[in-house]
Amino acid sequence: RSGEMAKLTQLIDNDVFRAYATYTAIVLLKMMLMSLITAYFRLTRKAFANPEDTVSLGKGESAKKYLRTDADVERVRRGHLNDLENIVPFFGIGLLYALSGPELSTALLHFRIFAGARILHTFAYLIPLPQPSRGLSWAAGYAVTISMAYKVLKTALYL
Amino acid sequence: RSGEMAKLTQLIDNDVFRAYATYTAIVLLKMMLMSLITAYFRLTRKAFANPEDTVSLGKGESAKKYLRTDADVERVRRGHLNDLENIVPFFGIGLLYALSGPELSTALLHFRIFAGARILHTFAYLIPLPQPSRGLSWAAGYAVTISMAYKVLKTALYL
Amino acid sequence: RSGEMAKLTQLIDNDVFRAYATYTAIVLLKMMLMSLITAYFRLTRKAFANPEDTVSLGKGESAKKYLRTDADVERVRRGHLNDLENIVPFFGIGLLYALSGPELSTALLHFRIFAGARILHTFAYLIPLPQPSRGLSWAAGYAVTISMAYKVLKTALYL
Repeated sequence: RSGEMAKLTQLIDNDVFRAYATYTAIVLLKMMLMSLITAYFRLTRKAFANPEDTVSLGKGESAKKYLRTDADVERVRRGHLNDLENIVPFFGIGLLYALSGPELSTALLHFRIFAGARILHTFAYLIPLPQPSRGLSWAAGYAVTISMAYKVLKTALYL
Repeated sequence: RSGEMAKLTQLIDNDVFRAYATYTAIVLLKMMLMSLITAYFRLTRKAFANPEDTVSLGKGESAKKYLRTDADVERVRRGHLNDLENIVPFFGIGLLYALSGPELSTALLHFRIFAGARILHTFAYLIPLPQPSRGLSWAAGYAVTISMAYKVLKTALYL
Repeated sequence: RSGEMAKLTQLIDNDVFRAYATYTAIVLLKMMLMSLITAYFRLTRKAFANPEDTVSLGKGESAKKYLRTDADVERVRRGHLNDLENIVPFFGIGLLYALSGPELSTALLHFRIFAGARILHTFAYLIPLPQPSRGLSWAAGYAVTISMAYKVLKTALYL
């Protein structure tokens, strides 16, 4: 039987799946980058969450003043959490979508818009760009994920 | 070539995998809904986290007062984070479980309880319902995930 | 056509995929454990985030004093969020990596270091151990994930 979906023979040889793997790796790496940016701001702003992180900065009371929040650190952390909230659904729904037999060109369109939107979202959040830059880039990624979910449910629905 | 990996034949034609895809898409969409609810409360309560989000509400000092936390917004955000903490393990362990060859009826039981529990959890959190509504719905989803993990480790264990 | 389940053929019979399934289940379960530890500290420290959670501790004003943050609770929550930020990329990139045809011994090395690093990270965070314990265990898991992402992009790149 040679169904559309069919024969994910060698998943990684399938073009849609390769595209999914590529863009998912990219957005997950982008999300991981947020950890480094947070660390950078914590070190340069000297703003830490854990007492053990401030030991090298001084003893006793003098180190305590570095246990504080910083606007730049908090901004990166909000961007990181927003990534988790949006990239996790893309990763999950995108996987099911890639297995649901979409056209390659359609799939690429979805993956590229999502990845572009999330990269733009990060710049919009960190620079920051005036609204509605961040709002629109968030919405573009959200809409792509909803569109993929619709295809998944249309193809696979089994309640 | 018929390599080891190979022949993921017809994932999406497999009933257990279709059920997994359906319920995973549902709970991920439910989780995504939390973003919209957060946005709704931020706009109606006028409580924002970023200065650039308050620009349209007034200039200078008059806009600053909208940079604040709000009990309703924070409640939705806690519900959203709780979703991440619980739906990510379901998505991951559920995927491995769906590939571990469970009975369809058993798999459906797991997926349905999880999805029902998380929907109930959201209502319990947002209304809010008196405890132990939220606690019990959380525990039901947690127990389902543990049960699936047990099956995965029993089937696939390779340390 | 023989057996519905069957023929996801042998994903779960593939040694690399079995190893992936095992270590992913382990780290996701470890992440789930953070919920129980948070609950334990909330109950023993009497520090809650929701008014409905404090009802059993007293009426009216006397219950309100339990709506507070606690250093131990917040520490566990930071550890939990750090798990989400790091285990989600491992789960996603690791899945693609497992499907990209790595050597079994290389794959096992990656999975074992990651799982060991994250378990160590949890101990380093909760005890807490002096730095750079937590930093190094975080970095080890991070490096493993980057290494797997490199293999995925080398094998699957399709932009």
